[in-house]
Amino acid sequence: MNKIKNVKLSSKGKLSYEWAKDHMRILVETIDKLRKNKPLEGITLGFCLHITKETSVLLMGAKELGAKIAACGANPLTTQDDIAAFLASNGINIYAWKNQTNKDYNYCIERVLDYKPDILTDDGADMNIKAHFSNKYNLLKIMGSTEETTAGVNRLKAISNKGKLRYPVIAVNNAYTKHMFDNKYGTGQSTIDGYLRSMNLLFASKYVVIVGYGWVGKGVSMRCRGMGSKVIVTEVNALRGLEAHMDGFDVMPMSKASKIGDIFITCTGMINVINEKHLLNMKNGAVVGNVGHFDVEIDTKFLLKNSKSVQEIRPNLSSCTMNNKKIYLIGRGRVANLVAAEGHPPEVMAQSFSNQILSILYILKHHKNMKKIVYNVPAEIDNQIATSALRAMDVKIDALTPEQKNYINNWNP
Amino acid sequence: MNKIKNVKLSSKGKLSYEWAKDHMRILVETIDKLRKNKPLEGITLGFCLHITKETSVLLMGAKELGAKIAACGANPLTTQDDIAAFLASNGINIYAWKNQTNKDYNYCIERVLDYKPDILTDDGADMNIKAHFSNKYNLLKIMGSTEETTAGVNRLKAISNKGKLRYPVIAVNNAYTKHMFDNKYGTGQSTIDGYLRSMNLLFASKYVVIVGYGWVGKGVSMRCRGMGSKVIVTEVNALRGLEAHMDGFDVMPMSKASKIGDIFITCTGMINVINEKHLLNMKNGAVVGNVGHFDVEIDTKFLLKNSKSVQEIRPNLSSCTMNNKKIYLIGRGRVANLVAAEGHPPEVMAQSFSNQILSILYILKHHKNMKKIVYNVPAEIDNQIATSALRAMDVKIDALTPEQKNYINNWNP
Amino acid sequence: MNKIKNVKLSSKGKLSYEWAKDHMRILVETIDKLRKNKPLEGITLGFCLHITKETSVLLMGAKELGAKIAACGANPLTTQDDIAAFLASNGINIYAWKNQTNKDYNYCIERVLDYKPDILTDDGADMNIKAHFSNKYNLLKIMGSTEETTAGVNRLKAISNKGKLRYPVIAVNNAYTKHMFDNKYGTGQSTIDGYLRSMNLLFASKYVVIVGYGWVGKGVSMRCRGMGSKVIVTEVNALRGLEAHMDGFDVMPMSKASKIGDIFITCTGMINVINEKHLLNMKNGAVVGNVGHFDVEIDTKFLLKNSKSVQEIRPNLSSCTMNNKKIYLIGRGRVANLVAAEGHPPEVMAQSFSNQILSILYILKHHKNMKKIVYNVPAEIDNQIATSALRAMDVKIDALTPEQKNYINNWNP
Amino acid sequence: MNKIKNVKLSSKGKLSYEWAKDHMRILVETIDKLRKNKPLEGITLGFCLHITKETSVLLMGAKELGAKIAACGANPLTTQDDIAAFLASNGINIYAWKNQTNKDYNYCIERVLDYKPDILTDDGADMNIKAHFSNKYNLLKIMGSTEETTAGVNRLKAISNKGKLRYPVIAVNNAYTKHMFDNKYGTGQSTIDGYLRSMNLLFASKYVVIVGYGWVGKGVSMRCRGMGSKVIVTEVNALRGLEAHMDGFDVMPMSKASKIGDIFITCTGMINVINEKHLLNMKNGAVVGNVGHFDVEIDTKFLLKNSKSVQEIRPNLSSCTMNNKKIYLIGRGRVANLVAAEGHPPEVMAQSFSNQILSILYILKHHKNMKKIVYNVPAEIDNQIATSALRAMDVKIDALTPEQKNYINNWNP
Repeated sequence: MNKIKNVKLSSKGKLSYEWAKDHMRILVETIDKLRKNKPLEGITLGFCLHITKETSVLLMGAKELGAKIAACGANPLTTQDDIAAFLASNGINIYAWKNQTNKDYNYCIERVLDYKPDILTDDGADMNIKAHFSNKYNLLKIMGSTEETTAGVNRLKAISNKGKLRYPVIAVNNAYTKHMFDNKYGTGQSTIDGYLRSMNLLFASKYVVIVGYGWVGKGVSMRCRGMGSKVIVTEVNALRGLEAHMDGFDVMPMSKASKIGDIFITCTGMINVINEKHLLNMKNGAVVGNVGHFDVEIDTKFLLKNSKSVQEIRPNLSSCTMNNKKIYLIGRGRVANLVAAEGHPPEVMAQSFSNQILSILYILKHHKNMKKIVYNVPAEIDNQIATSALRAMDVKIDALTPEQKNYINNWNP
Repeated sequence: MNKIKNVKLSSKGKLSYEWAKDHMRILVETIDKLRKNKPLEGITLGFCLHITKETSVLLMGAKELGAKIAACGANPLTTQDDIAAFLASNGINIYAWKNQTNKDYNYCIERVLDYKPDILTDDGADMNIKAHFSNKYNLLKIMGSTEETTAGVNRLKAISNKGKLRYPVIAVNNAYTKHMFDNKYGTGQSTIDGYLRSMNLLFASKYVVIVGYGWVGKGVSMRCRGMGSKVIVTEVNALRGLEAHMDGFDVMPMSKASKIGDIFITCTGMINVINEKHLLNMKNGAVVGNVGHFDVEIDTKFLLKNSKSVQEIRPNLSSCTMNNKKIYLIGRGRVANLVAAEGHPPEVMAQSFSNQILSILYILKHHKNMKKIVYNVPAEIDNQIATSALRAMDVKIDALTPEQKNYINNWNP
Repeated sequence: MNKIKNVKLSSKGKLSYEWAKDHMRILVETIDKLRKNKPLEGITLGFCLHITKETSVLLMGAKELGAKIAACGANPLTTQDDIAAFLASNGINIYAWKNQTNKDYNYCIERVLDYKPDILTDDGADMNIKAHFSNKYNLLKIMGSTEETTAGVNRLKAISNKGKLRYPVIAVNNAYTKHMFDNKYGTGQSTIDGYLRSMNLLFASKYVVIVGYGWVGKGVSMRCRGMGSKVIVTEVNALRGLEAHMDGFDVMPMSKASKIGDIFITCTGMINVINEKHLLNMKNGAVVGNVGHFDVEIDTKFLLKNSKSVQEIRPNLSSCTMNNKKIYLIGRGRVANLVAAEGHPPEVMAQSFSNQILSILYILKHHKNMKKIVYNVPAEIDNQIATSALRAMDVKIDALTPEQKNYINNWNP
Repeated sequence: MNKIKNVKLSSKGKLSYEWAKDHMRILVETIDKLRKNKPLEGITLGFCLHITKETSVLLMGAKELGAKIAACGANPLTTQDDIAAFLASNGINIYAWKNQTNKDYNYCIERVLDYKPDILTDDGADMNIKAHFSNKYNLLKIMGSTEETTAGVNRLKAISNKGKLRYPVIAVNNAYTKHMFDNKYGTGQSTIDGYLRSMNLLFASKYVVIVGYGWVGKGVSMRCRGMGSKVIVTEVNALRGLEAHMDGFDVMPMSKASKIGDIFITCTGMINVINEKHLLNMKNGAVVGNVGHFDVEIDTKFLLKNSKSVQEIRPNLSSCTMNNKKIYLIGRGRVANLVAAEGHPPEVMAQSFSNQILSILYILKHHKNMKKIVYNVPAEIDNQIATSALRAMDVKIDALTPEQKNYINNWNP
């Protein structure tokens, strides 16, 4: 069963799937090694992920391991309709299309839960929230869940802190091979991509304000500098603020940065980091966008309500006229690298999704002995993926010699 | 009169024109200062330029100065149809649409020459070649021409060296405020844009081979490094090869680089810099594209003829299967930053086109005293544009004090 | 009591002390806040640290807090004699001079232990090893120790793993405000300094091989790239190897890198990472040095024994002729940034030493409740130092609003 | 004949000479090719250059080509006394020692002119000024001169503009293989070296103000950014100001930059670019230095006269107390990369000095047909050196194919 935009897009989606698969060697090899034993036979998996060409490689792979699969999108605006069509044509139960209403979006999550999945894979935790607090689904028997994002992990930890988590969760986001690569290098590149496509303005010489210097903010700052921008960082955490300062970026409060910036990029997972006052401070022509999971980082409600006119002057770019100034908003404040571009490149998602598939198998095997808390990805999975990734990229490294191994355990140099 | 795709796209084109104009302050101010005197009244201008949103600001500006204008595209694939529609609706005689045949392309150039332009503005010199060597047009009385690109300047110099140039030409490309900014920062950014849109692969960690270390190659190398790539440069000029080496790039012959590269970007203006042998050397999965003016830099004829299959798997990306390897070709070897993206951002083109308008006025005023050779842009125009550009960007610099001015002319420190 | 080179150097040392103090505002403010209560009154502290101008600010500060102090150097070659003289003239019991024999070096450590210190502060763990395994000192009653380096922490953990640690140790090295800043930015800069002074060769265009991509290796790689070098990284850890690869460095085994490199920098804390075979592989003229704590990373024994001639051709640079090739060795393989330059700049050490003083006070207060294991620096100390550091550098950051604080604990965005 | 500090330093100087020679392959090969014919037999050369290890390779080479040589230093503070001793012991007539008075300095230049040199090689033009305007030497018969620096070329052009140049001058500085490499990469690195040795402060996170964005300023800006600094550029030229802005640096007037900077580096060749007002603007603790040829760029007279105390607190670093603030001055405002460090590394000087030797030979051969003006280095010399440099560094590049050569002269792609 499925609900998608147009099944005729399937052949176009197949090309995209193959293109992505060709560039996700780590994931493909991981699946290949497991295929023979069909370790997911008899298991139903429920996915709430951005439906992109990379995700299709994960879903098809999980299917090859024997699972029954139901999937929906993780955001109303990010589904690639040709991919959804391809998946529908290949036996995936999928409920997703681009440009959904919030009602549509929730409807699709519920359809996935109707399949009574044994294990959930979530991106932002919306599916897990429903599996906890909706009367219809909060009694489903679920072995566990994995979570892809910082934002989702934070929400699930809040639930766990109140003692209300119903099953174990593995924070795939916290794997080194996930957050280092996906959050830093992935978002770093795809943010440039999303901004270029939506605004097509020059990065060089401009003041770019990066809000937040976590893994995403670090990656975006690095790439904006690489494009020739003058990068300003704002932070609420002293350690990260100090790090940004030492990395040679200008660190200042948003009350000041908001008056200087030409381009703004929010990377925090936090609410209203660009608020009413900041928006009023901005220069005429400022470009504002968000690459965090939820569309809460910019107070777009204030902006849209108080603008005399709002006009989409380019795809995914709204010109908002407020106080005789124009503020340009990317993708209505939704995750710009997915809404205005295609998300992370496949090489990056190969690592994230290898973490997903191995964490799903870990839950399947160990869920009876796991507590109802949020776990990090086991170190051996992380290391195994790093080793596979190097091999997939034909990079060779050294190994410790016996003499050196011995030296580690010795206090006499 | 005009020949375009669809006049209904005009309102969409108007939005793009306004967006570009808002970001081309230098050009707008240059036009504003001259507008009152209508210095181009009674003059017909013939333009052969990429028909983009930025070009529309130049053409509308020239019209406001009193000129009658005829224009065509500078490449069969780069016209933005909405812009062409907007220009047609605003009194510009325009002959341009996206995806032309070569015959269409030549047809359009001839239509422009039919207007008997007094001054030509060319991008690649195709219009000038016709005005020299076509029986129908080689007797037109032309005051002079300006030329936008390195490739075009080289062709016109070849004509001049044979003593066959019919009128003076100003090499706008050679202005510091043109080549430094347009070729380096403009192409630097728009190349990243074109490659991201067409291939959506990770730049970080990849070997990117930049063919040529002129202004374009320098800009592209800098940006690829900024995206985290390992950059390899090939050159035929010892001074530039040495400079690339000192800039920290790996410099090697193409026979070696062709075996290492993951991504190739030609920036030379030269024929067959990626030839048959190099294509055969390449790794499975290599991505090949060109950002030079003409589609001669890669031997695409060989590649397309010898591939068992050629399939467009993504917009502007052809998968060519040759010897059991896939080579991916961007935009069939045509200028990738225009074909697969939107060309340079408006802030950059504002400088290039300010050089154009001031050079056109210079020819109008001085053509009787100019020789039939290729001139550089006069230094005072270059300086004036730099000064305007700084003002437009709110950047202030110092001025020499009288004491310092005196010091220059003095040999006693 | 003291044993130093020449007390007459004291006035020169005083100038250096003041210069450093002027640039260690965080440490000075930390001391200033505590001074009134003399929290270290009645306590004897034993320090085994590199005796540099920065260390003198720590020792004088600890004295101002009421402690009795005995100190020796942490390396036979790194003592700044003028600083030792200044400290001796100011009531510090100090046993240190430049260019010691190993016997001298051990003699000095023992003299410090003779003072029966309550708390030790160590750099590399040599003093702690003696306090554990020397018959003369292994019964001293010691509250605890702090340790400055990765190398020392590893040795102490090896002892702890065998269950033989006699008192709690705080791994100052593991504080974010220590390793991030000292190991990365501090060693990053001081390595460039040490190599420039000893070899005075061009970094730009050269292949620099960085052995190890931990915090030190990351910092050194970043700076060598900043100097225009082509950086090659070798690693034994897949996660770090992958990170170096994604950061755009060439990653390869040492067997290959040893044939390519012009300059080698070991940053591992591991034995023989440049071994006999690697030395034989090297190109004529290769420069080899180490910035890890111990002089074990390069097999200098092999190099010096097998060289036909060894000549110190510049301060701290030995030319070793082996197999008709010259290999240049910096500071005989000892920590080059301290031996050939002055170690980290004072701004960096201010953070490390603030961690030291606050950790010493923590041990004093809590040692009775601490286990005999290696502890990380408490998070509140780390945060406090980051906050002080930002204030000292006049950098302001934002704070979470009540709305935002609430959002953290909430799973409904 | 000679006048130096101490001939006993000769054996130390020999080691330095050999170290430099080993790293100046281009120059050595250039000399080797010419040696057999002794092209300088019977010729007397007068050199006014910084007497460094690199210069000794040039002087010894010129001697091997048959010349009689007299030499003096180009600055009272930059002579390396061991090198002077080595040269004196090897038949060079040399008049140079470190820490001269101005009278000493002039005395030495005159001793060189007493040898009646046929050709002069100058660095800053002091020797040429004397050969023009001193009664004792302005009738010497001189074939021509070469000049190493921007500052010297400017002075000689000022003389030429007044029609007073007595013989042809070749501006070695203007060779691409000189200014690109010496001014940009050479000064870029040696400035970092000089500042590190004199101040030993952290570059990362600091505001560094670079005064002037010519070749030297570009190189220094690039390296300071590479060290993690926040770079601010000041300029008087709009084109260069615009370039710095597009390169991502903050561009502003000195009246503003002087209040923000932590570290100042003058790179202009101009007088009083840091003047009285700027010095009064500076923050407590600012470090000020110059890497231009003459010590006129900072108004040190004002600073030293108005400071309550001036104390040399570290080698080449004076602490000046003015208005209760400390301003730290490097090397009393003299060229910091030579005074506080060793000047450019040998690989860079090999290119500059190859230009010198080939330009000297050019003057010898062509002086009768040359006008009394300032010439650029002939393009064939520049290309020849670039080609040699690549070969010396084992870098291979491509060559144009016949098809490609033909394409250049053809206007039909």
